[in-house]
Amino acid sequence: MFYVIGLGLSDEKDITVKGLEVVRRSERVYLESYTSILMVEKEKLEAFYERPVITATRELVELEADEILKDADKVDVAFLVVGDPLGATTHTDLLLRAEFQNIPTSVIHNASILTALGSTGLQMYSFGQTLSLPFYTESWKPDSWYPKLEENLKLGVHTLVLLDIKVREQSEENMARGRLIYEPPKFMNPAQAFSQILHTESVRHPAAKPQDSTQERKELPYPTSEREDTTNSYDTLLPPSQTLAISLSRIGTPTQKLISGTIEELAQLSEADFGEPLHSVVIVGKRLHPLELEYGGKFAIGGEKGGWWKVGQQVYGVQRETF
Amino acid sequence: MFYVIGLGLSDEKDITVKGLEVVRRSERVYLESYTSILMVEKEKLEAFYERPVITATRELVELEADEILKDADKVDVAFLVVGDPLGATTHTDLLLRAEFQNIPTSVIHNASILTALGSTGLQMYSFGQTLSLPFYTESWKPDSWYPKLEENLKLGVHTLVLLDIKVREQSEENMARGRLIYEPPKFMNPAQAFSQILHTESVRHPAAKPQDSTQERKELPYPTSEREDTTNSYDTLLPPSQTLAISLSRIGTPTQKLISGTIEELAQLSEADFGEPLHSVVIVGKRLHPLELEYGGKFAIGGEKGGWWKVGQQVYGVQRETF
Repeated sequence: MFYVIGLGLSDEKDITVKGLEVVRRSERVYLESYTSILMVEKEKLEAFYERPVITATRELVELEADEILKDADKVDVAFLVVGDPLGATTHTDLLLRAEFQNIPTSVIHNASILTALGSTGLQMYSFGQTLSLPFYTESWKPDSWYPKLEENLKLGVHTLVLLDIKVREQSEENMARGRLIYEPPKFMNPAQAFSQILHTESVRHPAAKPQDSTQERKELPYPTSEREDTTNSYDTLLPPSQTLAISLSRIGTPTQKLISGTIEELAQLSEADFGEPLHSVVIVGKRLHPLELEYGGKFAIGGEKGGWWKVGQQVYGVQRETF
Repeated sequence: MFYVIGLGLSDEKDITVKGLEVVRRSERVYLESYTSILMVEKEKLEAFYERPVITATRELVELEADEILKDADKVDVAFLVVGDPLGATTHTDLLLRAEFQNIPTSVIHNASILTALGSTGLQMYSFGQTLSLPFYTESWKPDSWYPKLEENLKLGVHTLVLLDIKVREQSEENMARGRLIYEPPKFMNPAQAFSQILHTESVRHPAAKPQDSTQERKELPYPTSEREDTTNSYDTLLPPSQTLAISLSRIGTPTQKLISGTIEELAQLSEADFGEPLHSVVIVGKRLHPLELEYGGKFAIGGEKGGWWKVGQQVYGVQRETF
């Protein structure tokens, strides 16, 4: 039997009892290592599983799938995936290949970021499409994720933003010279994520500025500082000072940390404020429920006086409930 | 410590190793029993956990939360939830109460239907909002779920439809007479779900009929039978013969069964075709990917000649890939 087994989110003990029984009796055990990582070393997994673990790189899975599936019609082979096994189509592809070869398959599910994001207190029913935010470089800032975010914001639903990770990447120079030297793994921090989101926002919706600075400006009925805070001066669904977000760091681990606030507040934090990987980010939709506001307030920048409560009540229009 | 622990989807061995360790050392163990069920008897859980398990009814959780939380600042108390613990706000409410009482809390995540629906081969990133379909009665057919489905269909994303369950419900007569006699648990079958969906569809979008049947009808450029199959004769996003869906039964268990086809095809199946609970249903959005079409084809009513392939290619416009 070819088993695809979810490992959950944190360490070696997040595997299910059923999954562990299969791993301990498997002839070969692979660990998929390029779509996510576990917060524990391979040696610790091997000690707990009492089996050697073969690291499955992207090259191995995509080019030598038959090696992984070999003899799985006669012996048990376990393919371990961090989170739930069927989060990415990579693994459905492997299952399809197995079935074309008449190899029986079985999937053992586990927690993934999609379920664990319940830790934000946001209702899972109120999430729209999930986005993946890629690393921006000097010359490449792909913003194909932006329209999906707009679709979600227009409906008022929440958006889970998965942050890019890079494992076993080669530098351009090493690739050009054919040297199989890999860069250290990189995991996007929410600080970079919010900075990228603000960059794309500023490109897509440059704030309306007077054409000529000497031009006479119409007298405003309120002070400038207040105006920036309470009006949406350009046509966007994502005004940073009026849009709430929550960062999720190391969800499901003992050092789990959530931070809530406006995108503007979150973008001012440093990488160290969020800490070690893995991270993701949620952009909060306008259909925010009082219980969601209350729960998210536990993690608010600036506490009771922070943007979370102010924007949640004044812009999102949520009535605070007595609890 | 107050622990909220996910049990996963199927039986006693779907708990994580970490969760099992906590349960075995807990002073009291509660099993939440009204939002979902496990496919195994309480006695089997107790034998495996080596602890007595207290059934937590809705009344206990909502009215006597303090009894559940009692002494949890001094001893370990485990509250077990089928699936992932934070799927429903019921449990975030319990966590908030604990924190207001300065009781330390911890959540141990697990698989839920939201992750396990990867078994359909549909990409989790391409799902929109999740719906809950309530049981219809003679006099009460609430269709507040319909606009959300339309929002998803308009975007072309997939929709997970969770089917109602009724546990410990009283009949109207017993309730009126104050008798604490409960009806046997009820779980919605996909046959009923599709019939309810078609009912609401027919109410919201009654097919356009000629006002007067003697009125001369315009000659159609193609035979009527073909016309019904390929045109959308009334203003709807959900024409049953042109919308794909997948039923999911007993996901994560050894008797797991998926069936794919048009809503029209699925609605013609009997309850027995789907079998025992638990069930849910997915309505497939137009942004269907070739790999999703391929994977879903494994469960298609009528195989290669069924509506899944026909509508997937002709209506959804997906090119079939050679594999």
